[in-house]
Amino acid sequence: MATRRNFLVATATSLTGAALSQVRGQEVPKEEEDRSADDLHRVMMGNETIAMLIYDRFTALDLFGPHHFLRSMMGAKVHLVAKTLEPVKSDLGVLVTPTTTLADCPKDLTILFVPGGTEGTLAAAKDEEIRRFIADRGSRAKWVTSVCTGAIVLGAAGLLMGYNVTTHWLAMGALQSFGANPVKERVVIDRNRITGAGVTAGLDFALTLVSKLRNDAYAQGVQLMSEYDPRPPFHAGSPDSAPKGLTEMLRHMQGPFENAAKALGKDLAKDGMR
Amino acid sequence: MATRRNFLVATATSLTGAALSQVRGQEVPKEEEDRSADDLHRVMMGNETIAMLIYDRFTALDLFGPHHFLRSMMGAKVHLVAKTLEPVKSDLGVLVTPTTTLADCPKDLTILFVPGGTEGTLAAAKDEEIRRFIADRGSRAKWVTSVCTGAIVLGAAGLLMGYNVTTHWLAMGALQSFGANPVKERVVIDRNRITGAGVTAGLDFALTLVSKLRNDAYAQGVQLMSEYDPRPPFHAGSPDSAPKGLTEMLRHMQGPFENAAKALGKDLAKDGMR
Repeated sequence: MATRRNFLVATATSLTGAALSQVRGQEVPKEEEDRSADDLHRVMMGNETIAMLIYDRFTALDLFGPHHFLRSMMGAKVHLVAKTLEPVKSDLGVLVTPTTTLADCPKDLTILFVPGGTEGTLAAAKDEEIRRFIADRGSRAKWVTSVCTGAIVLGAAGLLMGYNVTTHWLAMGALQSFGANPVKERVVIDRNRITGAGVTAGLDFALTLVSKLRNDAYAQGVQLMSEYDPRPPFHAGSPDSAPKGLTEMLRHMQGPFENAAKALGKDLAKDGMR
Repeated sequence: MATRRNFLVATATSLTGAALSQVRGQEVPKEEEDRSADDLHRVMMGNETIAMLIYDRFTALDLFGPHHFLRSMMGAKVHLVAKTLEPVKSDLGVLVTPTTTLADCPKDLTILFVPGGTEGTLAAAKDEEIRRFIADRGSRAKWVTSVCTGAIVLGAAGLLMGYNVTTHWLAMGALQSFGANPVKERVVIDRNRITGAGVTAGLDFALTLVSKLRNDAYAQGVQLMSEYDPRPPFHAGSPDSAPKGLTEMLRHMQGPFENAAKALGKDLAKDGMR
């Protein structure tokens, strides 16, 4: 029986092959088709090395949206990286087992990814061992990425200075204290930084990333297999569309988090530790 | 510092209080406001008992979308239920630790939930111990629910006979062999059965469920906190919108899964085990 990965392999191969003939509007010479098949095999198989950080009280959905799409890429190696190999508890209480440690994580990454959270994220951003890891791997990674408040961990490691960045709408005000330029978009790409907005933006973020790592057809295959054709029952997913009272209430309640994140950014800058 | 849950508590309280004054267009008498506050406290706190099945090779995103929204409901108890307490490996290799066993899971549930997968889901649907558990808890649960091919496990336990049901678009053809009426919608509600389509439909499914268990304001609060304002970079999330070649390819490749699911439904019916 075919597995999820096998579907996507077949998809990427056939689609791209078919696309080649279609674009040309004529038969493709055998020799060229073979060469193209080689190219396509490369596109299809990939060999990305992806490290996804997990830490005490991270938000599980920030991780599992992107993980689903990235891990579906044939040939990609995805590591769940934490300080130790002990199961890590998410902010909503789920225990997830890391696959490697900060120390053992491959040195050269295609993607460095950090999910968000609230108090746990600030703790991770303050943690020197985590900050050193992120700064080191981020200095060489092909793509340095985050979803939600994971951006604060990147910022604390000094990786967002002068970059356009997005984060959870309730944390946007903290980005400047890490030297970043806040941009109110679902997914923001600036050179090799790709950041997603809050929690569920991880789905849009990851499909964008798959299309960059492979191609649009591959990303569409992943999207169709996960039936990502969203139909939210309410239009309350952004501060612009939600009832005004709801937005203001959450903004008021979340103030302390944003302020703590701002203070962290300033402290790190002052101490030259960012 | 306020936690995610605290925000939502505050949201539900204030919003509903404000709404009461707003609808009346006049000040609410103190006595009535107090009574209403008591009602609201009930709505806000809740006491749902939710069991989410996990099994070898389940699809993690099928679980973690709904888990995020349901676990955000103040006062709800969410159990991750498996045959043993050993970590369970998802179809993409993530180890998740259950919180209770089939034997120890509470007998009376507000929600019974089953995530999908491919080979692992068929194995779970064939497993007598799992089938007995689902049939038993499902016979008393207030809501019997699934996302993606989790519907096949419900069907194998005899819980979908005569119900309108949805599942992953690639498995729709198997529903009839479990006595269900396939309905091509993102979320299908028929009496106390609520089923979601493939993988990411779990987000729309769970917001719908939150609005039923609490109220629309609460669901909107959860939606805004998770910034669920989807912007897929491609329009390929359903067989109707995806490139035709892609849809046909996946349908062809996935044929064996659908056929195996159909055969299982027929076998169980023949043996009177459903």
